[in-house]
Amino acid sequence: MKINEKLNLTMLCDFYELTMGNGYLASGMDEKITYFDLFFRDVPDGGGFAIAAGLEQVIEYVRDLHFGPEDIAYLRGRGIFSEEFLRYLENFKFTGDIWAVPEGTPVFPREPLITVRAPAIQAQLLETYMLCEMNHQSLIATKANRIVRAAQGRTVLEFGSRRAQGMTAALVGARAAYIGGCAGTACALSDQVFGVPAGGTMAHAWVQMFDTELDAFRAYCRTYPTNATLLVDTYDTLHSGVPNAIRAFDEILKPLGITQCGIRLDSGDLAYLSRHARQMLDEAGWTECRITCSNSLDEYLIQDLLSQGACIDCFGVGERLIAAKSDPVFGGVYKLTAVEDQDGRITPKIKISENVDKITNPHYKKLYRFYARDTGKALADYLCVYDEKIDDTKDLEIFDPQSTWKHKTLRDFRARELQVPVFQGGELVYDMPSLEQIKAYCKEQVGTLWEEVLRFENPHHYYVDLSQKLWDIKNDLLHSKK
Amino acid sequence: MKINEKLNLTMLCDFYELTMGNGYLASGMDEKITYFDLFFRDVPDGGGFAIAAGLEQVIEYVRDLHFGPEDIAYLRGRGIFSEEFLRYLENFKFTGDIWAVPEGTPVFPREPLITVRAPAIQAQLLETYMLCEMNHQSLIATKANRIVRAAQGRTVLEFGSRRAQGMTAALVGARAAYIGGCAGTACALSDQVFGVPAGGTMAHAWVQMFDTELDAFRAYCRTYPTNATLLVDTYDTLHSGVPNAIRAFDEILKPLGITQCGIRLDSGDLAYLSRHARQMLDEAGWTECRITCSNSLDEYLIQDLLSQGACIDCFGVGERLIAAKSDPVFGGVYKLTAVEDQDGRITPKIKISENVDKITNPHYKKLYRFYARDTGKALADYLCVYDEKIDDTKDLEIFDPQSTWKHKTLRDFRARELQVPVFQGGELVYDMPSLEQIKAYCKEQVGTLWEEVLRFENPHHYYVDLSQKLWDIKNDLLHSKK
Repeated sequence: MKINEKLNLTMLCDFYELTMGNGYLASGMDEKITYFDLFFRDVPDGGGFAIAAGLEQVIEYVRDLHFGPEDIAYLRGRGIFSEEFLRYLENFKFTGDIWAVPEGTPVFPREPLITVRAPAIQAQLLETYMLCEMNHQSLIATKANRIVRAAQGRTVLEFGSRRAQGMTAALVGARAAYIGGCAGTACALSDQVFGVPAGGTMAHAWVQMFDTELDAFRAYCRTYPTNATLLVDTYDTLHSGVPNAIRAFDEILKPLGITQCGIRLDSGDLAYLSRHARQMLDEAGWTECRITCSNSLDEYLIQDLLSQGACIDCFGVGERLIAAKSDPVFGGVYKLTAVEDQDGRITPKIKISENVDKITNPHYKKLYRFYARDTGKALADYLCVYDEKIDDTKDLEIFDPQSTWKHKTLRDFRARELQVPVFQGGELVYDMPSLEQIKAYCKEQVGTLWEEVLRFENPHHYYVDLSQKLWDIKNDLLHSKK
Repeated sequence: MKINEKLNLTMLCDFYELTMGNGYLASGMDEKITYFDLFFRDVPDGGGFAIAAGLEQVIEYVRDLHFGPEDIAYLRGRGIFSEEFLRYLENFKFTGDIWAVPEGTPVFPREPLITVRAPAIQAQLLETYMLCEMNHQSLIATKANRIVRAAQGRTVLEFGSRRAQGMTAALVGARAAYIGGCAGTACALSDQVFGVPAGGTMAHAWVQMFDTELDAFRAYCRTYPTNATLLVDTYDTLHSGVPNAIRAFDEILKPLGITQCGIRLDSGDLAYLSRHARQMLDEAGWTECRITCSNSLDEYLIQDLLSQGACIDCFGVGERLIAAKSDPVFGGVYKLTAVEDQDGRITPKIKISENVDKITNPHYKKLYRFYARDTGKALADYLCVYDEKIDDTKDLEIFDPQSTWKHKTLRDFRARELQVPVFQGGELVYDMPSLEQIKAYCKEQVGTLWEEVLRFENPHHYYVDLSQKLWDIKNDLLHSKK
């Protein structure tokens, strides 16, 4: 079977979601209302925050939830599901509520990026695809944001399709990288599908195809005089590549009055080579020629290169971005937080674990971010029970949920609820922003974080506090072990 | 746009493949016959070999190569392609030849996994998708094979969809993991699409949904008496989970005469907990109850657990497999090796680089594996020029291409050509094996490798030698720097 045929992503579930669903129906619990939170425990690369991404694809998935005849036939063939359950799936439709943090929002560990309220079978079925999409896109958006910040305003392009972990990792990864701050991609399909600007000029093969490097450069300048970026490292960067590039520019671009052009370095010591290439280009009068560099770049190497005076205008970043090589898993999880009985009474649920890190924050919650009214900077995030109201016209005392003796009083702050309603009663109620809007919002919101939170290594620990009421409920549950 | 609509994967190319194509046409080089090799430079995780995978999806991609009206419209909208080139794309069809190493073959650095002979535009266009697919699936198959070997015959299941880097990473990753030796997956879609056996029982949410853990276990055993694997770590593994599991087994399975069942541990110290759980189960008479463990497992942790006497029958492996967390990039590249003129004369091409590792093996080549006729073990691989013939009835002297003084004479060996013809003149000539056949072939071929090559850390360096003729051609090109 071809993977580029239309797939029913409803079937991209873990098999246990189906066995549990069948079991809930058999146990008369299929209509029991449940609350689940999607959250993560650690920021990749030891960073200070992550960028939430993937919601648009999750929304499309939820809208399309269904089991077709071929899905029912496959499940019947497994021989373990009741006919009642298969009939239930034939008529399956999402009827619940979903709240989510908008794409591009800086987020912190243990915050619910998505909260689902739905009958048990429905809520459980969403688990795998939602996690897969949110984990992947948040991973890449977070990594891209680090790399873009390291480049200090210079252009960063995503060049990694060939090293991506499969087709959607390339296609959707380019989208997430764009949200995180990349200026474009090499992936033509991502341009066509999502509008992520795609560009690219030549591979080494182009240079090798001609009798000489100079002939290859001349031919390229003739075909693309206004967009001539020449790859100069096929044979010898400084003794052959750059001199031949200058000669081709002189012969073909200069008579046309064109001053804008480029070279690309893809190997060797990029600091040394870019400084010398810059000097050669400037001495030849090609001061507007931009230097693009690629070759195993990430936020650390870019920082190092710039601190060594590398003359680089544009970074092409591949595998270390598109596969987030240094820390390639965004560990989002999806956990039951509460159940609701027929009278609407909500009972909080907790998952206890021998690994303390795996203990969950129970209950149907709200998530707030507090901003200083004078500087606009983000001060702290705050998780409270769904029925608590935050009044940001008054002072608010918050405390660290681990080290409860650490108190802080917030004054003159603005409280913003971070989650927005996305589905209500199964209907989409969220007006999806454009990719450009998401990208701009991400940049603006990262700008509200203190420099100390932005640091790559050992960043300041941003506060995500619990309300007293929520903390008490969690503690009660921990002591009763239920 | 939805990512689960049918996508034209032809557009999953790097934009430079299109700009070069337009340039080749403008320069009259579009019909120039080129040879490209797809190969990798390093085995992930410092291992001794990799497992080639992904060919089936590459074949489907090549068969479907085309540009539809919406693709042409998108490209025209970019404003840089000639109408002549757009007409060329409208009629685009692959007409070349492709040879490839069968899926499941153990492979070594610098060996051509795929060789393409085609007109320049066609051959270049294949680059991104072929690399993406081969890199991804070879990465996962290689990692899965390591993990399966660590489990020493115990069952290994792939549980990682939620941490996969996007939808195809989950779906196709399960396929690659199966080739590498996993017994199954949690991913229902991969079962439906590829026939990778999917299974799964319950999440923590199942246990939390009921008033008590025992109620949850009872309900599950009632619904699935012949397939009851109970997750025992929601509250307290040894004091609550295992005793409640035994009680549910006693109450519901025993009266039915069922002796097969299971428990799953997903947190805590798996060596300690599994030993104690085993003892409790055995003392209660449930000696056939299987213990499945999950939680950040990989080949090293599995090795450690087994050396500590952990009583584990089945390992569920997630993110460290599906994202190959420890080394998440398979660095395959695709390089021009030769061009052919109209008289059929083939000129070898090399890519030189300031990074010595990036220098390529030039020319249109053949790849052989030599097996000892007595033991069946693989002795060495051998790259030669396409027109060389290997006579395995005679002794053959081979030498190390880096340390040329290291010679070895092969006696009583069998030579096998590793690449098989896949496309000839654009037509598929390869009879694709089933997934089960690929999996069995992989296991058999890994069995031909010496134990020293199989070692996880510092494995023996397997010989991949060049023929004297190929070595001479490479050296001549290096000295002439062309």
